Amino acid sequence: MHNGIAMQHVPKLMDAELRAIDFSADYRLKEPADYAQWYNKTHIDLANLEHAVYGLPELYRERIASARLVANPGCYPTSAALAIVPLLQAGLIEPQDIIVDSASGISGAGRDPKPEHHFPERHETFEAYSVGKHRHMVEIERTLDPYVRGRKCAVIFTPHLVPMERGILSTVYLKPIQPVSVEHVMQVFAEAYESEPFVRLRERLPRTNEVARTNFCDMSARVVKSRIIVLSAVDNMVKGAAGQAIQNMNVMFGVEETAGLI
Amino acid sequence: MHNGIAMQHVPKLMDAELRAIDFSADYRLKEPADYAQWYNKTHIDLANLEHAVYGLPELYRERIASARLVANPGCYPTSAALAIVPLLQAGLIEPQDIIVDSASGISGAGRDPKPEHHFPERHETFEAYSVGKHRHMVEIERTLDPYVRGRKCAVIFTPHLVPMERGILSTVYLKPIQPVSVEHVMQVFAEAYESEPFVRLRERLPRTNEVARTNFCDMSARVVKSRIIVLSAVDNMVKGAAGQAIQNMNVMFGVEETAGLI
Amino acid sequence: MHNGIAMQHVPKLMDAELRAIDFSADYRLKEPADYAQWYNKTHIDLANLEHAVYGLPELYRERIASARLVANPGCYPTSAALAIVPLLQAGLIEPQDIIVDSASGISGAGRDPKPEHHFPERHETFEAYSVGKHRHMVEIERTLDPYVRGRKCAVIFTPHLVPMERGILSTVYLKPIQPVSVEHVMQVFAEAYESEPFVRLRERLPRTNEVARTNFCDMSARVVKSRIIVLSAVDNMVKGAAGQAIQNMNVMFGVEETAGLI
Amino acid sequence: MHNGIAMQHVPKLMDAELRAIDFSADYRLKEPADYAQWYNKTHIDLANLEHAVYGLPELYRERIASARLVANPGCYPTSAALAIVPLLQAGLIEPQDIIVDSASGISGAGRDPKPEHHFPERHETFEAYSVGKHRHMVEIERTLDPYVRGRKCAVIFTPHLVPMERGILSTVYLKPIQPVSVEHVMQVFAEAYESEPFVRLRERLPRTNEVARTNFCDMSARVVKSRIIVLSAVDNMVKGAAGQAIQNMNVMFGVEETAGLI
Repeated sequence: MHNGIAMQHVPKLMDAELRAIDFSADYRLKEPADYAQWYNKTHIDLANLEHAVYGLPELYRERIASARLVANPGCYPTSAALAIVPLLQAGLIEPQDIIVDSASGISGAGRDPKPEHHFPERHETFEAYSVGKHRHMVEIERTLDPYVRGRKCAVIFTPHLVPMERGILSTVYLKPIQPVSVEHVMQVFAEAYESEPFVRLRERLPRTNEVARTNFCDMSARVVKSRIIVLSAVDNMVKGAAGQAIQNMNVMFGVEETAGLI
Repeated sequence: MHNGIAMQHVPKLMDAELRAIDFSADYRLKEPADYAQWYNKTHIDLANLEHAVYGLPELYRERIASARLVANPGCYPTSAALAIVPLLQAGLIEPQDIIVDSASGISGAGRDPKPEHHFPERHETFEAYSVGKHRHMVEIERTLDPYVRGRKCAVIFTPHLVPMERGILSTVYLKPIQPVSVEHVMQVFAEAYESEPFVRLRERLPRTNEVARTNFCDMSARVVKSRIIVLSAVDNMVKGAAGQAIQNMNVMFGVEETAGLI
Repeated sequence: MHNGIAMQHVPKLMDAELRAIDFSADYRLKEPADYAQWYNKTHIDLANLEHAVYGLPELYRERIASARLVANPGCYPTSAALAIVPLLQAGLIEPQDIIVDSASGISGAGRDPKPEHHFPERHETFEAYSVGKHRHMVEIERTLDPYVRGRKCAVIFTPHLVPMERGILSTVYLKPIQPVSVEHVMQVFAEAYESEPFVRLRERLPRTNEVARTNFCDMSARVVKSRIIVLSAVDNMVKGAAGQAIQNMNVMFGVEETAGLI
Repeated sequence: MHNGIAMQHVPKLMDAELRAIDFSADYRLKEPADYAQWYNKTHIDLANLEHAVYGLPELYRERIASARLVANPGCYPTSAALAIVPLLQAGLIEPQDIIVDSASGISGAGRDPKPEHHFPERHETFEAYSVGKHRHMVEIERTLDPYVRGRKCAVIFTPHLVPMERGILSTVYLKPIQPVSVEHVMQVFAEAYESEPFVRLRERLPRTNEVARTNFCDMSARVVKSRIIVLSAVDNMVKGAAGQAIQNMNVMFGVEETAGLI
């Protein structure tokens, strides 16, 4: 939310030899140029930016365990990265042709009471916003990049607002490099997530209310014509925010990873 | 809404020999003392206050027709007065023991985006507010007073907020002076409203969505033990506001009363 | 829900010397005649009906502790009884002039998908139902009766449906026998509930979302003209149903009363 | 809705030299094999199927004017076809790489009260359904086919359910054959729809509540990396159903096309 604040305070915490989980976006993008471009600010704490670890335990558990500074991921990137990384890692999909079409409950828009989120304005409408301009687009790309050697990913990200309190569903369109079956896709996910306490692979399609108030990410896939479609659901305020921070804290301090979480 | 503004401008309109319908509460309460007490302001236009007509056509059609200044009623008082006046006028009920329990959609709270009406806060809750302190309580009482000779009415008014866009349902508890049948109650209403284009008496209970986006007031009654219960539904933004203003305008200008209204 | 089923099975459970908490209405009304009148069935297990205990721990904790059969209360009666009993017990209010105006989320209407609860029909409407005919009216009366020696209570009960998932708010209108201050009313409640883990007295008005997914009953009071108004909020599926059953089970088995409950 | 019924009755209407607008899907797919595959029924009225006209006035106004039988389009295909045809016709986009990601209010699921659309189940959730299997996928493809000479279109269609009463937003991902600017895309739409009374091109993104209860289709476009994104909003019950039928009727009978419509 209040990006730009954390990087003023983190140096003091690090100097005091404390460990921190940053809820803002200040330490999510490794490239200062990305930060400058998407957040309209010059990053003022490059030293700590360098060693900060992106806090998606399913991808970086070991580095989080020893990290001094963890950048807690954005809500949309959490739902998107979990749906894409295993397929990218398995070399199944084209990294330059990724479409992430997401929809979020209104709590994702923050706590400030804006006219467009006033109850009577919002109760009965659906819309896209920030198409091609949302900051989470670059966050998704940078999260995926390490999984394609020597290339960059290109993600088209379209967020929408759903008249509900909480929940994100991402519908991700991926282009297989070679024809692939849905069974194979699900097998790749099963191997990637078999030990994960918070990822649930499902045959049927995920629904946001089945992950509401939990730290789960529910996921399913379909193959339709020339595309793999992966659907993933998280609670934007739990796995997409505070719950994931607790999960990160558990990993950092070596306690049971599921402690305090449902 | 912006009470206190209209009374600054109405004198100029009246001086220019124009006619006006005031949407604010400035000319609804005949007693300057009531206005001072409930709106925390001294009324500055007593001359026009005196001849202003309360714009409930079902009660004051003839006076509205020739009025120069019409005070458009509040939303709750519209639903309450229509449910009570005929029974008071028929001498059936005790004027000192009236309970109006109302519930309104959130548009009734105005357009300003307040934290408590931010979508995620409001989507899944129900609550009462301003219990015993809402300004419409005195407006209802003053609207009823003329129908009991020489006495005052005492109304207990409890508004609630419903997580929907629009609509008011008032559940009105009235004490019959003598035992009465529901048939008799409905007969009194039928006689009072038989020529009214916008009051619909119903055997079944009214629902707010059946009057949504219309100028209708749907009404039904039950007799339960020691009370008559009258239920009335209006759209707070139509019969409870703009639609009623159009109805008043039609009456003032002698055009078809239903013109431009559904 | 499926009233009439439990009384076919409870005798077997009692014969087997088991203890039971009945979720249906079969053992809530002590008088077989009441059951016959309101549920259109002849009670077939009078023996167990006689020793069944009404499972409102705030009223009957000691009897529940040793009960073999507990009748878990209805959702509306829970919210109403907690709001009324202390004032009745203190002799402050008139037992024949009680109005309970309640509003419930749609889960209160059960799981069967009826046309009137189909999402598009329900999303934007508010209405009363079963006015003067709801079975919980007699359940409330019979729950209150023991607290007025030698007299009967008369309750007018008006339930409404709110387009939200869960929650009940009851707005209860009570007539003080002598003029009373709101401070005195709150003091009576404070004494009645000071040791209760699940009753929260509040100065500000209760909201259903503040008790959602909890076993709490939030309560506040106002005095307006000739009435005490008590507002109480519960989650109809927790304190109004399953949570209260767990609370009863805890009392019956002598474990911490709050175990497993929030 | 009740597909398979209309084709039993239409022959009689045609024999009686009447004209008809069919609300079902029976006459939308020109190929009997498509109908058999997607509706699991053998088409029994091939004679009338052949001359039936697909009732999208923006595409087939002249043929509708003289048609004896009009097949009123599905809700999703209306929103999709209007967003795609002009670009296909202009030769700007790849016909084999079209993704239509749509979201609909719950009225789109029909009037039958199913468990999954029971209010408490639906109020706070978002989900995709029938991914790659929805019958409107083939309807969209067949509607687009005539605009690519000698080739077939391939559409991936993913519908979602939004907890609101009405409205469809389609987010359409199209691959330009050559790099294109958003200005050029909007220019193509402007030329295609400049005389259309019910298509509104907008710079800002469309919202479903801005077309609710109207026959409008609001549309906007963006170019993001390798894709054109077109967003189109309709009311599924008006432009997506009954309103379009009225528009077709107006065209068929030569009255003002906007008569009776907002």
